[in-house]
Amino acid sequence: MANTLILGAGVMGTAFGVLLADCGHDVNLVGTHLDREIIQGIRQNRIHSKLGVKLPNRVAPFTHDQLGQALSARTDLIVYGVNSAGVTWASQQMGQLLRESIPIIMLTKGLAVRDGEIVILPQIVRRDLQEFGIMDIPVGGVAGPCIAGELAARRDSSVVITHPDADLLDWLLDLVRAPYYHARPNTDMVGVEVCAAMKNFYAIGVGYANGRLELEGKAQNGACMHNLSAGLFVQAMLEIRYLLGFLGGETDSAYGLAGAGDLYVTCQGGRNSRLGQFLGTGLHYSEAKKNHMAEDTIEGAELALAIAPTLRRLLAQKQIDRAALPLAIAIMDAVCDDKPMQIPWKRFYPGV
Amino acid sequence: MANTLILGAGVMGTAFGVLLADCGHDVNLVGTHLDREIIQGIRQNRIHSKLGVKLPNRVAPFTHDQLGQALSARTDLIVYGVNSAGVTWASQQMGQLLRESIPIIMLTKGLAVRDGEIVILPQIVRRDLQEFGIMDIPVGGVAGPCIAGELAARRDSSVVITHPDADLLDWLLDLVRAPYYHARPNTDMVGVEVCAAMKNFYAIGVGYANGRLELEGKAQNGACMHNLSAGLFVQAMLEIRYLLGFLGGETDSAYGLAGAGDLYVTCQGGRNSRLGQFLGTGLHYSEAKKNHMAEDTIEGAELALAIAPTLRRLLAQKQIDRAALPLAIAIMDAVCDDKPMQIPWKRFYPGV
Repeated sequence: MANTLILGAGVMGTAFGVLLADCGHDVNLVGTHLDREIIQGIRQNRIHSKLGVKLPNRVAPFTHDQLGQALSARTDLIVYGVNSAGVTWASQQMGQLLRESIPIIMLTKGLAVRDGEIVILPQIVRRDLQEFGIMDIPVGGVAGPCIAGELAARRDSSVVITHPDADLLDWLLDLVRAPYYHARPNTDMVGVEVCAAMKNFYAIGVGYANGRLELEGKAQNGACMHNLSAGLFVQAMLEIRYLLGFLGGETDSAYGLAGAGDLYVTCQGGRNSRLGQFLGTGLHYSEAKKNHMAEDTIEGAELALAIAPTLRRLLAQKQIDRAALPLAIAIMDAVCDDKPMQIPWKRFYPGV
Repeated sequence: MANTLILGAGVMGTAFGVLLADCGHDVNLVGTHLDREIIQGIRQNRIHSKLGVKLPNRVAPFTHDQLGQALSARTDLIVYGVNSAGVTWASQQMGQLLRESIPIIMLTKGLAVRDGEIVILPQIVRRDLQEFGIMDIPVGGVAGPCIAGELAARRDSSVVITHPDADLLDWLLDLVRAPYYHARPNTDMVGVEVCAAMKNFYAIGVGYANGRLELEGKAQNGACMHNLSAGLFVQAMLEIRYLLGFLGGETDSAYGLAGAGDLYVTCQGGRNSRLGQFLGTGLHYSEAKKNHMAEDTIEGAELALAIAPTLRRLLAQKQIDRAALPLAIAIMDAVCDDKPMQIPWKRFYPGV
């Protein structure tokens, strides 16, 4: 039995807490300031309102101001379950309280730009914690096709766990043995994290097909637009492969659970895909966001806005070949420059 | 303008005829003995009953006994649009009539066993035609995510065309330039053909998830089983990669349109996926086939029955590592031995 702490009581953090509890571990689930109502709800009836499940007794809810109480010398594992915008905040909270090195794994997915370079979030966490004098914390991640609601409902889910420390990776895999949770190791942390972040971005591109279908409707013979989405899906996967190779990952990861698998699931629904759908109907990003998704954090769009200046510089400097990223360029043009989304078919990869 | 002949007036052959006609070519569409009613229907009102579209005037319908009339010295291209069981029949018909070498491309997908080896269909066609003294016909193929009804409705479709002759490949790509048809070259014919065949087989495995969902229903919190299908999708793609490497293809093809792309589309519906769904509900193959799909040709199941003895021999002889094909073994056990379908999660690939 391990003592675990999850920071972030959104759907993914909490679903992971259900898993840890099922595996016999104690879980201190700490909401952020955004999760206040959720924590209150859990205290009242043990139900997470957005996840729609009753939490096991081993899950103990805390508000963010109780983090010091939730974290103790007995804590074996810290899980980051915040959204990508909350990562630095989370490290600041942790940095003030941590007295020793406790392993961290991240459910949070994203990329950030530091000193003009695109870096993965575990690196950001390490750097942020170093500012508090915590120099040696190993940070890993969980990725793969894992919709939180399905995990919380104990439905078969396949993930990869990645960690720089091989012993810790084995320990983590042992920690999450549940009949419905199929976790496998992947030692390519850069590749896994790039996949996990970029799938949100590319789901906007694949979601475009649903918008075109909404706009044009089924054909007279009942035809939908599966061919269109499949063509976009393949291009997205191949561009992810290029990007992770450029950033130092192993290209195989693009075809695994973190890459193709998570892209597959992300394209079945969710906010990124929905934004793509709005763009597919002909709406501009600004209209879609303002009129339909004003309250939503769209991770893929946030990522586009965060990395576009850097990606565009790399393209302009020819460090990245324009031919490698036609779909990414189209998505950046739509999200960052508010242009109508256009699919550059003629520039899509030949040969595959 | 080219003079083309399509043998097989099923949905895929006919949809390809619509494309060729749109590109300005004359199309002689020759039904097999199974297509008699379809050809009659086209003659009456120009509508293909299963495809649900009106055919362009450039498409001329012929019954199979009129093949000699449809094929002429002016024919520039022959398209095989029969199903995989009809390939040898098609070559026998052609062999009796052909007086010169006319390029062939195949829409038909499958694998066959000859002399204990698994071979791609273009090789079968070449061998079958050689028995008629036709020694030098180049045979290529079209593959990728292309549902016939969507192609016939002129909806964006992405494919690869593969051909052993580079000049002919260029000519073929020129031949099918339509705004909705995004054809790219792929020189890896073995890889493309293996993908195109195996995706039907593996769609049975991915379709299993829909059956489990049907059996268990949505969870109380509304959760479906997308995580499950994504886990199966990734394993299927990786096993296709292994198989095509074993058979002499280039592994990259597994991630392109013929591999991941077509698997993506095939998993959205169709007979193979539906068979998988029945297996997922707990039915045995024999029950599913007899009670629900008695009239259907299920290409993936036919392929399983055709290649299982050879694949199993290769596994027994350790020419193929059992660890490489856990999902294939599960599908063969279900289809060929009528065992209940079981997902061997613990044997799925680690590391990705």
